Parts: sequence; C-alpha cells; structure tokens
Amino acid sequence: MNDRFLRACRREPVDCTPVWMMRQAGRYMPEYRALRAKHTMLEVCKTPELALEVTLQPLKFGMDAAILFADILLPLEPMGAPFDFQKGEGPVIFSPVANKADVDKLHDFEIEEGLGYCLEAIKLLKKELKVPLIGFAGAPFTLASYLIEGGKSSAFAKAKRFMYAEPETFSALMAKLAEVVRRFLHKQIDAGVDAVQLFDSWVGQLSADDYRTYVMPHVQHILKDIEKRGVPVIHFGTGTYHLLESMAEAGGTVIGLDWRTPIPVGRQKVGPTRAVQGNLDPITLLAPRELAEKHAARVLESAGGAPGHIFNLGHGILPETPVENVQAVIELVHKASARP
Amino acid sequence: MNDRFLRACRREPVDCTPVWMMRQAGRYMPEYRALRAKHTMLEVCKTPELALEVTLQPLKFGMDAAILFADILLPLEPMGAPFDFQKGEGPVIFSPVANKADVDKLHDFEIEEGLGYCLEAIKLLKKELKVPLIGFAGAPFTLASYLIEGGKSSAFAKAKRFMYAEPETFSALMAKLAEVVRRFLHKQIDAGVDAVQLFDSWVGQLSADDYRTYVMPHVQHILKDIEKRGVPVIHFGTGTYHLLESMAEAGGTVIGLDWRTPIPVGRQKVGPTRAVQGNLDPITLLAPRELAEKHAARVLESAGGAPGHIFNLGHGILPETPVENVQAVIELVHKASARP
Repeated sequence: MNDRFLRACRREPVDCTPVWMMRQAGRYMPEYRALRAKHTMLEVCKTPELALEVTLQPLKFGMDAAILFADILLPLEPMGAPFDFQKGEGPVIFSPVANKADVDKLHDFEIEEGLGYCLEAIKLLKKELKVPLIGFAGAPFTLASYLIEGGKSSAFAKAKRFMYAEPETFSALMAKLAEVVRRFLHKQIDAGVDAVQLFDSWVGQLSADDYRTYVMPHVQHILKDIEKRGVPVIHFGTGTYHLLESMAEAGGTVIGLDWRTPIPVGRQKVGPTRAVQGNLDPITLLAPRELAEKHAARVLESAGGAPGHIFNLGHGILPETPVENVQAVIELVHKASARP
Repeated sequence: MNDRFLRACRREPVDCTPVWMMRQAGRYMPEYRALRAKHTMLEVCKTPELALEVTLQPLKFGMDAAILFADILLPLEPMGAPFDFQKGEGPVIFSPVANKADVDKLHDFEIEEGLGYCLEAIKLLKKELKVPLIGFAGAPFTLASYLIEGGKSSAFAKAKRFMYAEPETFSALMAKLAEVVRRFLHKQIDAGVDAVQLFDSWVGQLSADDYRTYVMPHVQHILKDIEKRGVPVIHFGTGTYHLLESMAEAGGTVIGLDWRTPIPVGRQKVGPTRAVQGNLDPITLLAPRELAEKHAARVLESAGGAPGHIFNLGHGILPETPVENVQAVIELVHKASARP
C-alpha cells in the first residue's frame, strides 16, 4: 500500500509530499455527474456499491488517500432530524432545532443500524484500495449549526443566537452530537479506515473565548478518546487562524489549515508534535493551468519540505474546477516535492 | 459638540468610551421600517431629506457618532454599473463584470453630479448634528467582489477566480474603483464629514500574500492621500485577524476589529500609533438583555480602558436585534467605562 499519506500524518520522512483533495469525488468529474444524474446524493451515500464507485473515481488522478464518499449530515437522520439535498441549494433540514423540546427529541442510535451503510462501504473499499482510506464526521458545532439554521448559512445568526441565548440547551445539543460522532468514528475505525477527519468547517466564525467555552469540551470528548485508537486524526476547520492553538489543544494529530494561515505560521501555532494539512485556495484551481500550478508550487515552498505536511486544499474542491488542473496540480506536488 | 468619538480616534483621553454601531440606522428600528415601507432603499439614499431623517433616527439611543445613511455600492451606478436592492436578497448588479470589455466600460464621473445627493445630505446633517458625522466608502476589493459576483456571495469564487485568472484586468478594475473612492471621500470631507470609514468588508477571504499583491496598492492609493486631510480614517474589514498588520500598513488611523480578534491582540498587530474600533459580535445582541450586556462588558474589559478605543460591533447590526438591547448596551458602555 502507498503509505505516504500515513507517514506524513505521523511526521515521518516521505519520498514526496502526499496529496488528496477535500470533496475529491465531486461534481467537477464527468463520471461523478453521470452517476449523480441517475441517483440522488442520499442514494449514493446509502448504497455501499455506489459509494464505493464514487470514492474510487478520483483516484485515477494519483491521490495518495481516498476519503469515504458520505456526508457529515448523515448521522442526523437516525438521530431524528431527517434532511435532504435540494438541487443547487445544499442541505435542508426538514424540522430545524429551535428550542429545548427539539433538542430533547434527538436520540442516540446504534451506529450499525443507523449508519451501517457507511460501515459496509468502508469494508468494500478496503478490499479495493491501494491507498489509505480516510473516514470522517462533522464536528458538533458544525452539525449544530446546520440543525439550527435548517441548512447553509453565511453568518450563522440563528445558531449563534441559540448558543448565546440558551447556553445550557445548546450545550445539551452539542453533547448529544459529540457522543454520536465519537461512537461513529470508533465504528469507522473498527470497519477499517486508516485515518479519520473531523470537519468543524464553520467554527472559524467564533472567537477563541467562545470556542473554548461552547465548543472545545465537546470536541475533546470525541478526540481525546479517538486518538487512543492510534490512527491519524485530522482536525479541520476554515477561517481558523485565530483558533488554531485551541483546536490543537482540543485534539488531532494533524491540523487542517486554510489559505489564510501560512503553513509556517500554522506549524508554529499547533506545535511540533502535530502534522499540518492544506492549504491551497480551491479558487486558484479555476485559473489557467500554469497559474494554478504556480499557486500550488507556492504552497509547497511555504511548507519547505519539512516532515509532517499533507498537501490539500483549504476547503472542498469547487464543481467548476477543470479536471486537467486537478491532474496537473497532483503531478506537480509529487514531482516538485520528490526527495532523492 | 460631543467630541468623545474624535478624541478616541486620536487616542486622546476621554470621559468614557465612545460608541456607535455599524448600520445603526436600520431595520431593527420601527421608525426605519415605517419610512422604508414608503420608500425604497435607493430613494432614501438619493433624497437628502430622507437620508437626513434616517441618519438621525438612532441617535436617540445616545450614540457618540452619526454615520451618513448611504450604501457602499452607490458609486457603481454613475460608473456605469446600475444595481438595485431586491427584497430580502441584498443588492443585485444588473450587468456583472465578467471580462476586460466590461471593465473598460466602467467610467469616471464628477462626484458632484453622480453622488451629489450624498454631499447634500452631509450638508443638511452638519446643521443638525451634535455628534461627529462619519462619511464612508467601500474599498476596491469589496466593491469589485459585488461587481463580479453580481451581488452577495459567501465564498467569492467568481471574484477571486477573476483575480487569479486575469490579474491585469482585475488590477485595472481595482484601480478604477480606487480612484473613484479616493475622490468621493475627498468630496465628503469637503462637504463636512468629521471622519471617514473605508469598508473592506470581505477582504478577510484573502491570504496576506494575496492581500499585499492584489489589494494593498489600491487601498494605499486611497488612504495615503485621504490621511493628509487630517480627519480620522477608519479602515474596516471582517475576518481580518491574519491581515491586520498589512491593513494597518495600507492605511487608516483607526483599524476596525471583529469579534475574532481580541482587542489586545488587535492593538499589538496594528501598533501603538493607531486606535482600534470594535468588536462586539452583533449576534450577542440577539440574546436576552443581561447576556448581551455581559458580552458588551467583556469587550470593555478586554480594551482595558487604554486610550484609543471606539466601542462598536464587529459587523453591522442585525435586523432582528431588540431595540432595548441596543439602548442597554450603549448605556452600559458609557457607564462602565466612565473615568472620574
């Protein structure tokens, strides 16, 4: 197996910098669009054979890791908060959480029953893959923000209002989500994933004080336990320059950086015992190929060849990304970072 | 005249911390909603008597400064890019900028002709006001992002794609916008404003490297010149923790901070020759009054009573904010910061 990714996660020497891309199985690929024309997002997630197929699609570009095709919101349905993806609109939670009664109604569930399809897809993937498989889950704040907002948001006014106005109920919601996520990640590791990533995509909206008060205990509940399993744990967010010290303290053996945090600054903030992952702005991949390559080369230069760097985007790849730019950047990362 | 705000901008001692709130004339006020039921946003902006009335409305709460009621997009129309505000949707640019031909078509104009209504409103306001009047303009990156996106955006993919893919055309667009803004701010000062604020609301999306390459020269074109006028110049953005050193270098005698940048950190980043403005999260104002006051008190504690702090929100006040919380927070700021 190509273990470049796992070695970099453990800050061991590698022959070249490993690379994968968040949302690497996605709409930018014609094969993905063709399959999605026949199946909804939830159908693909819930049918292990389809999740397998989609997870494998981007590996032809030479990524050094696969990530299970799934969605961070999947645990919400078996908790009692069903949702769907509306065309071009992102997810819609049918009954958003608005008060204590709504929080009380959310319930725990057996992972094998509620999310067995993910575990099944992991088992199928492990028979096929020649690169490590990354499992994942959404972090409690990011899941709570979707539950309260009812979908995507830009300022997270409802979710943060709930947090500020009803801190005890918010904490109860976070605790319920954290426990489900902790158990889900354990089961993914049992099923065979080689690493896990916790997506706290929207936590950068909070101040460090608020992060430590309202979020960190719940992330710690998950990560302090999951880290004992010995697989790399990637802790990811966007807009987190001001939070990185606290996020690293909350947990993770690899910390995700977006393009707003230069890699040397990120390394300093998370300390020498952790690897870093990132941090190409996905929008640079929309530029002509030579310019996209130039931006990618700058990320490598910034990382400076020290161990413990996984090349990735700072956020998910965009649907309008030209396939040839993805191919070119992956080749560039491998070539430009090759150690003799 | 109450000169607390101007003294704080100049880092002079004050009897108590001055306070105003971005978008303080807005939908959270019943009087504002009543007036807007009869007039569109653009009608209010373009009718000096209405702009006067709306600008004065919130001053009953005891704000230490007024800000001209206007919109950062107003200069776009006389440049040849008309727009309107669609109900609940924010601004819509009728013909978004997509290429060099679109940029070439944008043209300079006489401020007195294209934006004379703002200058007229300033003159009316100066006869009425007992607090300083703040004029303002949007910064080139923020204006360019609206022009290219055609309206609001969350990831600014089109604007940043344009920037990365066509850097020369993007620079030409930025230069045109910067020159209009520079001349507009001069005319506002001529008309009588006591301070100006440059809103680079969305610039926090960029890395510091990209800020310095694509944005800073254009902001400097404006601010290095405007600073010569001797009125306080507030340089504002959101999500700028990672950019503050560069923004301060670009210009401004007061630097705006949002809730993600603790005030002592912000002060350190912008240096001892500048005041800071901020940084209450506007969403805290949606909590019950006592909790909103607690958050406001924490901002004051964090500022520590040193000179050169103007209390403000980290971004505009939200339409759903209870009026009584605005009143309570303003009173709290004045009382809790009173110097004997």
